[in-house]
Amino acid sequence: MISERGKNLPQSPIRKLIPYADEAKARGIKVYHLNIGQPDIKTPDFIFEPIRHFEQDVLSYGPSQGIPLLRKAMADYLVEDYSLDIAPEEVFITTGGSEAVLFLMHATLNPQDEILIPEPFYANYNSIAAIVGANIVPIPTSADTGFHLPPGEEIESLVSEKTKAILICSPNNPTGTVLSEKEIKMMVDIAVNNNLWIFSDEVYREFVFDGKECSSILKFDYAGDRIVIIDSVSKRFSSCGARIGFIVTKNKELYNTILKYGQARLCPPTIEQYGAASGFKHRSEFLPDMIKEYEHRRDVVYEEIETMDGVFTLKPEGAFYTVIRLPVEDSEKFVKWMLTDFDVDEKTTMLAPAGGFYGTPGRGKDEARLAYVLKEDDLRDSLNILKEGLYAFNNKG
Amino acid sequence: MISERGKNLPQSPIRKLIPYADEAKARGIKVYHLNIGQPDIKTPDFIFEPIRHFEQDVLSYGPSQGIPLLRKAMADYLVEDYSLDIAPEEVFITTGGSEAVLFLMHATLNPQDEILIPEPFYANYNSIAAIVGANIVPIPTSADTGFHLPPGEEIESLVSEKTKAILICSPNNPTGTVLSEKEIKMMVDIAVNNNLWIFSDEVYREFVFDGKECSSILKFDYAGDRIVIIDSVSKRFSSCGARIGFIVTKNKELYNTILKYGQARLCPPTIEQYGAASGFKHRSEFLPDMIKEYEHRRDVVYEEIETMDGVFTLKPEGAFYTVIRLPVEDSEKFVKWMLTDFDVDEKTTMLAPAGGFYGTPGRGKDEARLAYVLKEDDLRDSLNILKEGLYAFNNKG
Repeated sequence: MISERGKNLPQSPIRKLIPYADEAKARGIKVYHLNIGQPDIKTPDFIFEPIRHFEQDVLSYGPSQGIPLLRKAMADYLVEDYSLDIAPEEVFITTGGSEAVLFLMHATLNPQDEILIPEPFYANYNSIAAIVGANIVPIPTSADTGFHLPPGEEIESLVSEKTKAILICSPNNPTGTVLSEKEIKMMVDIAVNNNLWIFSDEVYREFVFDGKECSSILKFDYAGDRIVIIDSVSKRFSSCGARIGFIVTKNKELYNTILKYGQARLCPPTIEQYGAASGFKHRSEFLPDMIKEYEHRRDVVYEEIETMDGVFTLKPEGAFYTVIRLPVEDSEKFVKWMLTDFDVDEKTTMLAPAGGFYGTPGRGKDEARLAYVLKEDDLRDSLNILKEGLYAFNNKG
Repeated sequence: MISERGKNLPQSPIRKLIPYADEAKARGIKVYHLNIGQPDIKTPDFIFEPIRHFEQDVLSYGPSQGIPLLRKAMADYLVEDYSLDIAPEEVFITTGGSEAVLFLMHATLNPQDEILIPEPFYANYNSIAAIVGANIVPIPTSADTGFHLPPGEEIESLVSEKTKAILICSPNNPTGTVLSEKEIKMMVDIAVNNNLWIFSDEVYREFVFDGKECSSILKFDYAGDRIVIIDSVSKRFSSCGARIGFIVTKNKELYNTILKYGQARLCPPTIEQYGAASGFKHRSEFLPDMIKEYEHRRDVVYEEIETMDGVFTLKPEGAFYTVIRLPVEDSEKFVKWMLTDFDVDEKTTMLAPAGGFYGTPGRGKDEARLAYVLKEDDLRDSLNILKEGLYAFNNKG
């Protein structure tokens, strides 16, 4: 009696090995979680302040599009930090970035419609496209070129009559790749030339290293009506559990359509919206240090990986992930084995097998996503365990 | 470039007249909102306590199915108050009751499948069914019989090959009707005889008056595998903005399917789950007084309506709504006129036209939903304005 689509909905590849981690923990093994994007960075007090001091008598429904205070805070941030021309009326608050992706796909894609996404991509895009009944057409990229985009002709050759949208994510989850301005412009122009939407998931907007500048696709204002931003406070303010995300668009018809989806779920959580608004107000007290910390962790990861025989990655440019190629045939088997059969002093390391981040069957089988969400000591320890695990896995009897 | 389903998604009938209310307010008119289910009851301190004292360093993702503390609190409440045999593993936490309905419909209905729902029904069922692509087949009920169910044969005659589920809501939004145990058993048996799911929206479970006992459909345990409860803390603890809801089911296959939908949105808001858990712990300090207050308001509403010429309702039995028949041809026109053209001492009253609560086109045109979510003084004032408005509307030149 389960619906066909319910049966066919893919399980989260990030979460499906959790039972093995739970079993390892039950045996007394400490598991270093490099498999999920849950940072150990302390949530800043300025997020908690308005939550702790929420003084309204009634914890009531807010507007379906979010409270005016937060919509203005988000618009002001984009105006001040990125010189964009964005008004609060162009900001829609969602229950996490995941709902932003869901509402966007619902509002723009009919069943069987296609959306182009560079692969590997955030695994939940797969689940959400499946919920909506749309098909992801992957744009292949490779570790060898740091997961940067192929030439425009190659991408345009993937456009069909069913194609309605392009979705990019930069800085990227899972690869850590930061698209160049030229690459982003190329994608915008492909969208313009083929009359497509272009969605840009910018939840890691500030997470760029080596002194590079980050930006937003909204700067390409000649394509203003077809551009939509997906955003979230989860990573920016280490507030994954707040479930506050954003859609930003100048397209009024799209906004009003999304509003109908928003009304069907009434409103995003009320209290956290005040926390998030405070986050944008105090961002400069927090973001530079956090980015510095992630850049340092990135250096640690790259340095350690360089010492591992047969492991390959280019130096990640942003976010807090990297996809590494492993000297194994099937990374899912290896990741599972690390949980079921391996430990160093009762500790082991968990990665996310990369297969689930690809749309093309068979791709990414020897790759894994590594999230550097732990502080340096834990990170070095977990990577040494990974190194020893790889050696043991490849030299077992 | 908007998707067909995005274009066709109905706007919330409860929210679509809001612009006229906003215009009235901009003219300095006070609007009594009897149109929405947002109570003025103070959210109890025991909900805010754990929110104000949330002491974790990182506001992190929780489990997709909700935190163990709240799942146990919900299960314990059902065991203790209703002698049900429910374990925490049978409780799934959703982001509000609306997400519970969405996940359930996704997991059990294919596009074009049918779900039977007594009409009038909660308007968001319409939106959510439209999102999922399923069709609601209304079971007609009428104000004349207090919106109680028709005979079983009449209901079974609506079952087709496409029918997969029945959804009931008791105490009911929008009618205030409380189904008798006999009626609920009849629906369970129809589900059993026709191999259907039976979903029971019990968010108003405690909201029953005149000393009647409330219960849960889960007591009919011979149908355990096909029964699913939808629940929420929104009304029970006057915490609509918390966005914490529940699915309770003994069906493991359904639970695991819903878990996949849950993983695609990561988790419900973390902090409010602690507030909700505290709510169940302290429920006896709060619920009896709140129910008494609503019962009193119900009496006030009924007393006032009895004095209105040509207005008809039976005495509501539960929840905090009633659907009233008005001496007008088109209640939407009347509700709008009350906002645009009428006031008493710069105050007016807003109802929800009932058309949007019906699945059968044309039904409910002379009806409106009235939510008695205001304290007695405001309620009497708003109802007097309604009375004068009706007279003026029917005697204008």
